[in-house]
Amino acid sequence: MGVNGKVRVYFKELTLSTKTQYELIDITYEVEKAVRDSGISNGLCIIHAPHATAAIIANENEAGLIQDIIRSIKELYPRNAGWKHDIIDDNAAAHLGSAMIGSTRIFPVKDGRLVRGTWQNIFLVEMDGPRPYRRVVIEVIGE
Amino acid sequence: MGVNGKVRVYFKELTLSTKTQYELIDITYEVEKAVRDSGISNGLCIIHAPHATAAIIANENEAGLIQDIIRSIKELYPRNAGWKHDIIDDNAAAHLGSAMIGSTRIFPVKDGRLVRGTWQNIFLVEMDGPRPYRRVVIEVIGE
Amino acid sequence: MGVNGKVRVYFKELTLSTKTQYELIDITYEVEKAVRDSGISNGLCIIHAPHATAAIIANENEAGLIQDIIRSIKELYPRNAGWKHDIIDDNAAAHLGSAMIGSTRIFPVKDGRLVRGTWQNIFLVEMDGPRPYRRVVIEVIGE
Repeated sequence: MGVNGKVRVYFKELTLSTKTQYELIDITYEVEKAVRDSGISNGLCIIHAPHATAAIIANENEAGLIQDIIRSIKELYPRNAGWKHDIIDDNAAAHLGSAMIGSTRIFPVKDGRLVRGTWQNIFLVEMDGPRPYRRVVIEVIGE
Repeated sequence: MGVNGKVRVYFKELTLSTKTQYELIDITYEVEKAVRDSGISNGLCIIHAPHATAAIIANENEAGLIQDIIRSIKELYPRNAGWKHDIIDDNAAAHLGSAMIGSTRIFPVKDGRLVRGTWQNIFLVEMDGPRPYRRVVIEVIGE
Repeated sequence: MGVNGKVRVYFKELTLSTKTQYELIDITYEVEKAVRDSGISNGLCIIHAPHATAAIIANENEAGLIQDIIRSIKELYPRNAGWKHDIIDDNAAAHLGSAMIGSTRIFPVKDGRLVRGTWQNIFLVEMDGPRPYRRVVIEVIGE
């Protein structure tokens, strides 16, 4: 398939407040709404958290798994492990998780819909909450 | 360099069957063929697995290293480690690997070619096989 | 917001030399300069290292944290751990870090500026240096 046309770019910004130190917030509905609202048929959707202590991931929204993801992050990027950044601020572990996991995920958009698996919900991953003001920038680009 | 033109979007979908629980399948040839078939000169290529228990990575296709990658994934995201999701399904480890490693990789396309290093082959990473039907969506966008 | 126009693509390539085995090099200035030089108002910026033993990450440029990131990479992807690739070359750990962390990061571009958090500097992560010739491809696509 090949399509052709003027490029279009659409932005939507979410503001989220988090309640605890580690938390996953499902933003799939908002991402899919942004894709629809963009009117873009074919292109890409980027979901970006402009933060150094949060991340974006895609996976299943199952209550047990969400706890597992948080446990895994805490084990891979442990708090109070003698990190040098903790001398300045006590959140080195959150920085490490954000740097390694990444603060961005990207999906194809085809025929006006986000191309994602049935079990690929999209989450903001808070690793240094609670925070009153976490931003997620959703961008759709295409034709 | 700056170029200018109508945006074009090209999609190609692969269907792969996996033979074992953990497996890397090299899809570099198919990705590069999609870039050529797209006729797009300059833009991006996104390789996306719409699955929550698989991932996409780029690295060297060397038999020993492929075993090392699988070993590393198993050590970072161990099976049977008391994950809560395993009460529902026995594949929490695969979900964790997919969420953290990511199910998407993206490369520049320049002068009609994928911009990748000599040792950057592209792989589907199966972490919950065998599966008869794994999808990879390849999208090329640009001009 | 929705905008409309011809697609434009801009490329800039950096060549960096690294001095030690593990090293982070801050390339934020060069990435932001590429976005300005592109003249593109709205779109995406992809930062890609075409290497299998390096990575790209985004996080805070704080001296202690940079040491923490290197320590975390070394702990998650340890050297001399009996990797099979080390029989051929002694850098399996660097390959693993590159494959898992990823050699690409991507950011929105809005109103002519890179959309990034205050603490999201962009780094090339060397894991198999010193090397005289590391490349980073910066691409801006949009309108």
